Amino acid sequence: MSNTAAAIITIGDELLIGQVTDTNSGWIAQRMNELGIDVLRRVAVGDEKNAIINALDAELKDASIVIITGGLGPTADDITKPLLNEYFGGKLVISEPVLAHLKELFSRRNRPFLERNMKQAEVPDVCTVLFNKMGTAPGMWFDKDGKVIVSLPGVPFEMMHIMQVEVLPRLKERFTSEPIIHRSVITAGEGESFIAERISDIEAALPARIKLAYLPGAGMVRLRLTGRGGGVESLVKDLELYQHQIAERLANVVIATEDIPLEQILGRWFMANGATLGMAESCTGGYLSHHITQVKGSSEYFKGSIVCYSNEIKEKILGVKKTTIEEYGAVSEETVTEMARAAIGVLDVDYSYAVTGIMSEGGESDRLEIGTVWMAVADKTNVVAKKFWFPYDRARNKEMAVSMGMLMIWKFINKQL
Amino acid sequence: MSNTAAAIITIGDELLIGQVTDTNSGWIAQRMNELGIDVLRRVAVGDEKNAIINALDAELKDASIVIITGGLGPTADDITKPLLNEYFGGKLVISEPVLAHLKELFSRRNRPFLERNMKQAEVPDVCTVLFNKMGTAPGMWFDKDGKVIVSLPGVPFEMMHIMQVEVLPRLKERFTSEPIIHRSVITAGEGESFIAERISDIEAALPARIKLAYLPGAGMVRLRLTGRGGGVESLVKDLELYQHQIAERLANVVIATEDIPLEQILGRWFMANGATLGMAESCTGGYLSHHITQVKGSSEYFKGSIVCYSNEIKEKILGVKKTTIEEYGAVSEETVTEMARAAIGVLDVDYSYAVTGIMSEGGESDRLEIGTVWMAVADKTNVVAKKFWFPYDRARNKEMAVSMGMLMIWKFINKQL
Repeated sequence: MSNTAAAIITIGDELLIGQVTDTNSGWIAQRMNELGIDVLRRVAVGDEKNAIINALDAELKDASIVIITGGLGPTADDITKPLLNEYFGGKLVISEPVLAHLKELFSRRNRPFLERNMKQAEVPDVCTVLFNKMGTAPGMWFDKDGKVIVSLPGVPFEMMHIMQVEVLPRLKERFTSEPIIHRSVITAGEGESFIAERISDIEAALPARIKLAYLPGAGMVRLRLTGRGGGVESLVKDLELYQHQIAERLANVVIATEDIPLEQILGRWFMANGATLGMAESCTGGYLSHHITQVKGSSEYFKGSIVCYSNEIKEKILGVKKTTIEEYGAVSEETVTEMARAAIGVLDVDYSYAVTGIMSEGGESDRLEIGTVWMAVADKTNVVAKKFWFPYDRARNKEMAVSMGMLMIWKFINKQL
Repeated sequence: MSNTAAAIITIGDELLIGQVTDTNSGWIAQRMNELGIDVLRRVAVGDEKNAIINALDAELKDASIVIITGGLGPTADDITKPLLNEYFGGKLVISEPVLAHLKELFSRRNRPFLERNMKQAEVPDVCTVLFNKMGTAPGMWFDKDGKVIVSLPGVPFEMMHIMQVEVLPRLKERFTSEPIIHRSVITAGEGESFIAERISDIEAALPARIKLAYLPGAGMVRLRLTGRGGGVESLVKDLELYQHQIAERLANVVIATEDIPLEQILGRWFMANGATLGMAESCTGGYLSHHITQVKGSSEYFKGSIVCYSNEIKEKILGVKKTTIEEYGAVSEETVTEMARAAIGVLDVDYSYAVTGIMSEGGESDRLEIGTVWMAVADKTNVVAKKFWFPYDRARNKEMAVSMGMLMIWKFINKQL
């Protein structure tokens, strides 16, 4: 069974000047992967006729499936629909179901239906219309020489909706592919070259159908085993054998054997242990709390956070002593320790995390180096504080503080701190 | 003067299975744009020799500059360096400055220097080494037939550092390009087709050197005028003329004439008005507070947030009445109004924002539809509450709530609510 190959083309000048971050092609890649379809390339081009046609020609050479997003809006800079119509030699005709949907949408919003909006109901007569319940621009499915070309709006939730309801079921029916299966080992506290060294004999012994990849980031390295071929059952068995070997060898640094984010690893522990968590965040401004609450069901164990950006709030709500801040500074072991201890009581939780630091100029940056961050984790009897230093800009320092913060909570609850 | 064109190639299997979001190529595209260099295409390929070579061949046809990121790590899945060495007919040699840097890095971290790490000091003898102070993998600059190929590590802050210190100054010296200049008009509260209708005569009258693009998202539409050619001074004059015309025509929906995020627009207002802001966040879990604190200097006006994920914290710290929550529910006009009013007093601020809602199953999802969100904005005398409904998944609903929340604060302080 040969593998089906896909390519993803994203269209929009905003991508080529870096005005927006493309999250669409990553999401589509995940879905292709789940179907066992290889993504060969992801290409971004501008709202420019020749660029789009060249990309289509080039990708259709190697791929059986080309998924295109963007350029379907009602304004003059959106050229994908007439271009595809011409490319596939069609004629633009009004789609009655799309027209009815648009009219209903506009009347529900009490907006007049403009000539311009009429154009949004037009579709090439050579495509299968993919109805877009979530928005105004329908998707389009073209067949050409046994290959499939799908065009979708660039608005992420509209694209996702049409993919799930219209595109994925059709692809599943049309293309049968051997599944691609992944197994992961997530580690913390050791660099990728040391990890590679420790498991080099296991890596060397991997069969050809299994590949190992290392993804380093923020104090952690994610190891991903990817396999395909030779029957699903035996493949899963092999993957899990090697996953187990690697996890055993790296036991002292393994934090999970599943590729899930740290907030979810924490969530499982708090859920399983019936424990509660609260926070006192200064320099991360609520970003760690945001991560924790990304997990469905987090309200079971996460009670809340005092985002104490000002010293008044550290004092007034948490009850950090004024003298502590005056004597040692807001960014200090003493202050962060008091913050963590106070959070246990104020939020009435079993575990607390506290953080205070200097992310860019201002505040105590005359006294301390920018990037200095103090963190503490506490339970009802103990508190551990630790100093970090991050060398990046404001946004990246915040990201790092959040990753290292979650890792510190993980180590604390696993008695590794 | 003809325009210099660039292409960006990102390398890594993780991009083709959607395991990580590529932020590198957007950042690089922004920098190219600032230099007046057109980005023709952004391409992502896997850690696979032929795919990388094909991408290089294809992009070198149209572009004078090809920037490559990724695949420079110390593990077996990283193949970019030997591949480029072969592609440009070089020989791998030890770079003494890189070796010295690596040894110092490892000794500072108290880690042994492995054979594997020695390999990281190797560079093709046909490239200019781009020293990487931030990490272990050096960047490489190749010249070929008047074209430039740059290879950089995929770790974002290492890539950014080498770009800023080594690559951008060299590109600026080598290529002279007419600058690309943008002007923006940011609107809120009207759909893109209505906006396009209202300014259709202005759009039709734009000279050839100026393009107009519409970027819709979360209750807002960003209009971007992009111009190039005919002399900078006259171009800026023209761009600002059309920007002014558009802003004047759309006056009732314009919120800024600069492409900056909403949190920064808010920040400027609070700074200029010497006013303070605080929050009480339930369902957004600190994410709005995180956005506000992304702005440098936000500690001048942002005092903090009570992330009251549990009802106890709403009652205990904010002082929301138990009876209000019991009678009307935690997600209700009454509760959110009390939260916003309480935040003014508890956080001692001039303005407050409060939010409570249901992002996914659980909580009050038996009583209310999932996606129901109540928000309120208050000052010392007034409070306005508003109900929203978001139809997406948990993460996207949170994003939407944060965008609409910032917009609501903006409308309140501008007396448009």
